Amino acid sequence: MTTKLEKQLRFLAEADKLKNVLRRTVLTDKSRRENDAEHSWHFALFAMVMREYMDGSLDMEKVLKLAAIHDLAEIYAGDVFAYDTSADRAEKAKNERLAAEKLFSLLPDGQQEEFLTLFLEFDACLTPESRYANALDRMQPFLNNVLTDGHTWREGDVSKSQVEERMRPILENLPRAYQAFIAPEIKKAIEKGQLRDE
Amino acid sequence: MTTKLEKQLRFLAEADKLKNVLRRTVLTDKSRRENDAEHSWHFALFAMVMREYMDGSLDMEKVLKLAAIHDLAEIYAGDVFAYDTSADRAEKAKNERLAAEKLFSLLPDGQQEEFLTLFLEFDACLTPESRYANALDRMQPFLNNVLTDGHTWREGDVSKSQVEERMRPILENLPRAYQAFIAPEIKKAIEKGQLRDE
Repeated sequence: MTTKLEKQLRFLAEADKLKNVLRRTVLTDKSRRENDAEHSWHFALFAMVMREYMDGSLDMEKVLKLAAIHDLAEIYAGDVFAYDTSADRAEKAKNERLAAEKLFSLLPDGQQEEFLTLFLEFDACLTPESRYANALDRMQPFLNNVLTDGHTWREGDVSKSQVEERMRPILENLPRAYQAFIAPEIKKAIEKGQLRDE
Repeated sequence: MTTKLEKQLRFLAEADKLKNVLRRTVLTDKSRRENDAEHSWHFALFAMVMREYMDGSLDMEKVLKLAAIHDLAEIYAGDVFAYDTSADRAEKAKNERLAAEKLFSLLPDGQQEEFLTLFLEFDACLTPESRYANALDRMQPFLNNVLTDGHTWREGDVSKSQVEERMRPILENLPRAYQAFIAPEIKKAIEKGQLRDE
């Protein structure tokens, strides 16, 4: 018989695999690609620092939990490039839900439901916490892209409108940060030829 | 003049360097050494999963913030091997405090103090949140060590009493988890010759 603690440790051991899920983003020193575990940590730090740019009350405990678990499904579903226009977004959401259910099924009852609920809340992006979290999930790779001469944008031949669409959660939820940081950096990236202007 | 947002982004960019601070622990697939950013993320996940093993009330928002920032000073101070008997612990604490002050000085007033206070709270290990956090900071590498045939213990010729001393925060704060997981795994590691018995 598997004890509750054994189940929890098995889940935590399986979660270690997130450290091997590579993203398109590179580290600021361009030495290598970033992985999902590092991104999730950096996202939590963004959440701590950027709080003042979102109006209204926020349950920060929940935000930090969303940061920790939002990419866990990619252990089985893999990372889909943010600017891959051929990717089927509905298919991606379905695959990730199945992957999340598979991973969280390692947990004891109660925690399974807790983790899946948080995971789906992040994806649905309807609560203040998940809206803030989704904005930061976009802002972290944006900053790394700016600091690496638009590495991901150049690699993916990404257009201005694609980035604007991707950064919409920041425009909608942290408008001051969008106007002071995102908008001028998009403009500069176009001038430098890192982003394609239509 | 540097705006508040520029300071915050500069801090978040500098923090990216935590992804390059390597630890002695290896990933569960033994493919490479773990870095501090990945460890900090995994630690947050441990905090979410292991809550029931610590008695009393806990501010989980604070615990998750401690997970995100507890190793940041190592960007400048470097990682000191947990079982390095030659290491001067008082010197290490002093270096890390200076490093933390240097890093957090990038932040605007208010956040500087907030981050340093959290950092020192983790190190002092006096509040329930920092005691829980310190226990998990030990449990995460312990699990990875168990899953990699005692990689770090063998590499460092580590003794049973060194590990027991290192795991004391788990014994003191999560005693059920210690008895059901840590103690039997230490026993097994000695039997397998991964840990030196005195």
